[in-house]
Amino acid sequence: MPSIEHNYKFLFMMTKFSLRHLRRFVFNNLQNHDYESHLSRLLNFFLIFLIIANVLAVMLESIDSIYFAHKKLFDLFETVSIALFTIEYLLRLWCVAEEHPDQPAWKTRLQWFSSGGAIIDLLAILPAYLNFIVPIDLRFLRILRLLRLLKLTRYFVSLQILLAVIEREKGSFQAVVFILLIMIVMAAGGIYVVENKAQPGVFSSIPEAMWWAVVTLTTVGYGDVTPVTNIGKLLGAVITILGVGLAALPAGILATGLANELSLRNQKLAQEFRNLLISNQIDYLNETKEIEKIRKRIGLSKEQTNEVIMQLIREKDLEEQEQQKKAFKYCPHCGEKLPEA
Amino acid sequence: MPSIEHNYKFLFMMTKFSLRHLRRFVFNNLQNHDYESHLSRLLNFFLIFLIIANVLAVMLESIDSIYFAHKKLFDLFETVSIALFTIEYLLRLWCVAEEHPDQPAWKTRLQWFSSGGAIIDLLAILPAYLNFIVPIDLRFLRILRLLRLLKLTRYFVSLQILLAVIEREKGSFQAVVFILLIMIVMAAGGIYVVENKAQPGVFSSIPEAMWWAVVTLTTVGYGDVTPVTNIGKLLGAVITILGVGLAALPAGILATGLANELSLRNQKLAQEFRNLLISNQIDYLNETKEIEKIRKRIGLSKEQTNEVIMQLIREKDLEEQEQQKKAFKYCPHCGEKLPEA
Amino acid sequence: MPSIEHNYKFLFMMTKFSLRHLRRFVFNNLQNHDYESHLSRLLNFFLIFLIIANVLAVMLESIDSIYFAHKKLFDLFETVSIALFTIEYLLRLWCVAEEHPDQPAWKTRLQWFSSGGAIIDLLAILPAYLNFIVPIDLRFLRILRLLRLLKLTRYFVSLQILLAVIEREKGSFQAVVFILLIMIVMAAGGIYVVENKAQPGVFSSIPEAMWWAVVTLTTVGYGDVTPVTNIGKLLGAVITILGVGLAALPAGILATGLANELSLRNQKLAQEFRNLLISNQIDYLNETKEIEKIRKRIGLSKEQTNEVIMQLIREKDLEEQEQQKKAFKYCPHCGEKLPEA
Amino acid sequence: MPSIEHNYKFLFMMTKFSLRHLRRFVFNNLQNHDYESHLSRLLNFFLIFLIIANVLAVMLESIDSIYFAHKKLFDLFETVSIALFTIEYLLRLWCVAEEHPDQPAWKTRLQWFSSGGAIIDLLAILPAYLNFIVPIDLRFLRILRLLRLLKLTRYFVSLQILLAVIEREKGSFQAVVFILLIMIVMAAGGIYVVENKAQPGVFSSIPEAMWWAVVTLTTVGYGDVTPVTNIGKLLGAVITILGVGLAALPAGILATGLANELSLRNQKLAQEFRNLLISNQIDYLNETKEIEKIRKRIGLSKEQTNEVIMQLIREKDLEEQEQQKKAFKYCPHCGEKLPEA
Repeated sequence: MPSIEHNYKFLFMMTKFSLRHLRRFVFNNLQNHDYESHLSRLLNFFLIFLIIANVLAVMLESIDSIYFAHKKLFDLFETVSIALFTIEYLLRLWCVAEEHPDQPAWKTRLQWFSSGGAIIDLLAILPAYLNFIVPIDLRFLRILRLLRLLKLTRYFVSLQILLAVIEREKGSFQAVVFILLIMIVMAAGGIYVVENKAQPGVFSSIPEAMWWAVVTLTTVGYGDVTPVTNIGKLLGAVITILGVGLAALPAGILATGLANELSLRNQKLAQEFRNLLISNQIDYLNETKEIEKIRKRIGLSKEQTNEVIMQLIREKDLEEQEQQKKAFKYCPHCGEKLPEA
Repeated sequence: MPSIEHNYKFLFMMTKFSLRHLRRFVFNNLQNHDYESHLSRLLNFFLIFLIIANVLAVMLESIDSIYFAHKKLFDLFETVSIALFTIEYLLRLWCVAEEHPDQPAWKTRLQWFSSGGAIIDLLAILPAYLNFIVPIDLRFLRILRLLRLLKLTRYFVSLQILLAVIEREKGSFQAVVFILLIMIVMAAGGIYVVENKAQPGVFSSIPEAMWWAVVTLTTVGYGDVTPVTNIGKLLGAVITILGVGLAALPAGILATGLANELSLRNQKLAQEFRNLLISNQIDYLNETKEIEKIRKRIGLSKEQTNEVIMQLIREKDLEEQEQQKKAFKYCPHCGEKLPEA
Repeated sequence: MPSIEHNYKFLFMMTKFSLRHLRRFVFNNLQNHDYESHLSRLLNFFLIFLIIANVLAVMLESIDSIYFAHKKLFDLFETVSIALFTIEYLLRLWCVAEEHPDQPAWKTRLQWFSSGGAIIDLLAILPAYLNFIVPIDLRFLRILRLLRLLKLTRYFVSLQILLAVIEREKGSFQAVVFILLIMIVMAAGGIYVVENKAQPGVFSSIPEAMWWAVVTLTTVGYGDVTPVTNIGKLLGAVITILGVGLAALPAGILATGLANELSLRNQKLAQEFRNLLISNQIDYLNETKEIEKIRKRIGLSKEQTNEVIMQLIREKDLEEQEQQKKAFKYCPHCGEKLPEA
Repeated sequence: MPSIEHNYKFLFMMTKFSLRHLRRFVFNNLQNHDYESHLSRLLNFFLIFLIIANVLAVMLESIDSIYFAHKKLFDLFETVSIALFTIEYLLRLWCVAEEHPDQPAWKTRLQWFSSGGAIIDLLAILPAYLNFIVPIDLRFLRILRLLRLLKLTRYFVSLQILLAVIEREKGSFQAVVFILLIMIVMAAGGIYVVENKAQPGVFSSIPEAMWWAVVTLTTVGYGDVTPVTNIGKLLGAVITILGVGLAALPAGILATGLANELSLRNQKLAQEFRNLLISNQIDYLNETKEIEKIRKRIGLSKEQTNEVIMQLIREKDLEEQEQQKKAFKYCPHCGEKLPEA
């Protein structure tokens, strides 16, 4: 006859088991990118919707007439949003332990806590709580709430690729920004000397002249500050012609880097599929689920994945043909026809 | 002695046969890109001319002095144009069945009806007919008539290539537009906070400030709205320098994508010619018609096609030389000289 | 004893011979790019100087105070310039016959007459002579004289490369300009509808609105015409974001095309040198003159030529090593180390 | 017993030896890029800090209210800076002799003296000394002091890469700037003719109109000068559309050139490592110091170097595998799987 103690022990184990089960369930639906169910999709859509609604609310609140007319509604929406984002944050912190079941939970949680995504999540809720302790200027609080927009990066693969490229090419960007800064300072110094007497109000100092330099070298050209003397216009023209290429340079670097990154990921994906194919672990014509998993992990669009698979199918056909005929008709490397021996 | 019934039957068949014949004739001259005759070229030029004349008419109509002086002429031209475009649309819908003679006509027609080109054709005439049912504001009707301009895309191969590149690189564009939107919202929020007190009229709310952000980040820089405080100028400078590369990014992506697409099409064309050559189906030095067909299907300019053909001729010469001498002097793959054995 | 007749004949032949000699001399110094002497260099520098002086004169003449103070000097300079450019043109037309000595002189001259360079040369002098017949407005005549600037293209290799790239990529440019035109017309139509009531003076018609569309889509953004209504600003923002990438596209296409063109010319140069090397016609370490000739014909900078030569020297060394050792250590094609058999 | 003379001789030799030692020490810590110690790092950081502080001081001095309040402090800081930069310059000139110990010191010093870096160093101090002889306008002196900013180029590898690319692509830049100048002159001439009557004040001469042309073709578009006539707007639109691609071209050239330069340096680095590996001089998994030396000489970031090393390790593994199995499984050149014999 089981004792009460035994019953408690059983209950405790059951609870622990079901907690584990629950944590796995939450992890899969909230955090796991390789898992996809109706619930996880619904959850993602709801969170994306909530973020966008928050940003729209911040924008509308800044229009006084709308804000004062619907103050209570806005405040309610903000309170509910904070609550939901806080729950999301805590759930993620709790369930993330499932990611590496073989290492202690606190370690995985700490790793996640210091990751970029988690910091963005924290930034999205922290200002609201800080406001309880230190009252923050309402307008400033609004921009801090705009940071919630960054939470969207989690849901866009192509955005992550772009950020990866920016990260990898940061050396070039550093050089460009540095040259741009040198040019801005030099241009400001030059224009200050030649225009200071003609327009003492506008070009009163080098820092003031830097506003003109930035506006000109980035080709924005508001026209609120322009040189009026002949020598000032000549200097302005020379600076503009020399500097105009520089401002567009980061775009060129990014574009080249993006093209390289995409072709690199294509190769990586193809290699993974190839390895799986060689070891006969996957029949890529049918196992769409497995392919979808790999595709997401590597971060490629469906069209690109299909191209890679089509290439692999062609290669396999070629290989089979070769095995049967025991003689090459085409070079297996570059695809050119080989002359018959 | 043939009965009357037999006569009717014969007449019916004759009509059917001649209708088929007529449909083929219309299809070839209006719709078939692989077919080229004096009539088809004339028809294409007339349609291009009609589209451009329509757009010019819409422009001139918007100038009140011209419109009221020649109102009747404009109205007549519009009526005739609508009639012609409607006939064109119906003829295309009817004759397109010839494209896939092996599947039922309604299926081919439905496919065409839901294609991009057909939707543009419909958009070109629909507003005019809608205007009978629901009267549309004249000015708004005019822009809808400007949509006829899109009908021109059918006639420019290089335009279709560009659209194909945009379609393929849409992932990157999505990322860029998304980052641009985030930057616009953030920049608007920031400038709203720092400039709101100095210029309450201009930066009255975040949506208002977004106009400044868009104008600045795209480097348009009208100058109708500019920061005036020092901190506003500093923030504006930082935003401009960070964001300036982003606005030009789509151009870089498009340029890289365009170069890749063109080299891809070159390879595709070369492969098709090569296959036809191996199977001895084509003597590409003489059969210009066949070449022209393939060229149009893939969508390359005549110059590019000629380059591909010249390359193939060189390769063939090499091959023939090899067969005679039974020993390679150059690597058939990369074209480098091989050392003699 | 030689008769008088004989003397005349001899004199005629001498004259003919010396004329031939003179024509060759003029051709070499004025027209022949492969020939280089102190005189030809001096002549080129003088002509470049004369062109630049002409352009500067046109600019200065447009400043009334300077023009009226030195009218006689300007008129004299113009007369002398016209005379010199006319002599240059006639000399080129005469001596160009030396280019293809094996075909009749008139044929070579006609070919040159209808070439781009000759048309530019003619445009540089024609307006001055036309002015004798039909008096041209002085201001308009001035810009026509600015066309002399185009004569400089003859002297810059890198400019000819850029023009060749523009010529080859003209299909892409056509597409871009075409899309840009469609966008301009559409944007103008849209902004005309939404802004016409608020700013009837500025957006009075679609052609008027096109000025705004061009200024915005090319990111020039003067600010003389801007949307003021909220819906106008929204439309303006959407148009700007969509269109901003397009305006910078030609630059991207040009840059990619330029890189391809340069690598193509490098390969061409290397192939020519290689062929000359194989046939033992040239010892490229010493015959700098011959190299210089080839370099100019192909149109490469000295640095690039040196790189190609260094590569060839390395290759030759490799070949010699191979002949001695009778076994490859490196793949002669890709330069990778080969494993020993 | 050593004579006094002998003592002097000994002292002289000791001094000479210790001077040599000192010069080596100074060279290593100040000038030698391959040497790294706590002192050299501290020295570099101090010099970077001093340069930035100088530039900030120049900026602040240009604000009258700050300058007159702290005049003495600014003057003191300038005097100290001049002293420090002068000492730095003299020390570099002295110790640079250690760079090539096998050639006479004056020769190495002359080479350094005429190098780009030394000229920048001299430009940083020369104006201050010139001011003693010829008094220079204070404002002009300030910009000359801004030249000290260029001293920073010494410390940024990515900046040197960018400058190398600009140097190598200078042919293309020359062509672009040349075409841009032609377009500016032509556009100015055209707009001058059509707008001169409507706006005689703004478009009074071609040089005046060139300001508009520069501002428009570089897409800066201040809006201080815009065409107002219809024909002027049409001409402006055509010029803008044609020219807009050109202004962004240098960016495209730079971006492509930068990508090429980086891949070139990668190959160079890999080649050097490979050579060292073959001659068994280096075990690149451990000898981090040696790697660091090569990395700095070629000018690559640490991440890029690591990528190259990882690639080499993979290659070595492949080679070892090959030597054991005596048969290739993958093509050693392109990495594709080879069919079994």
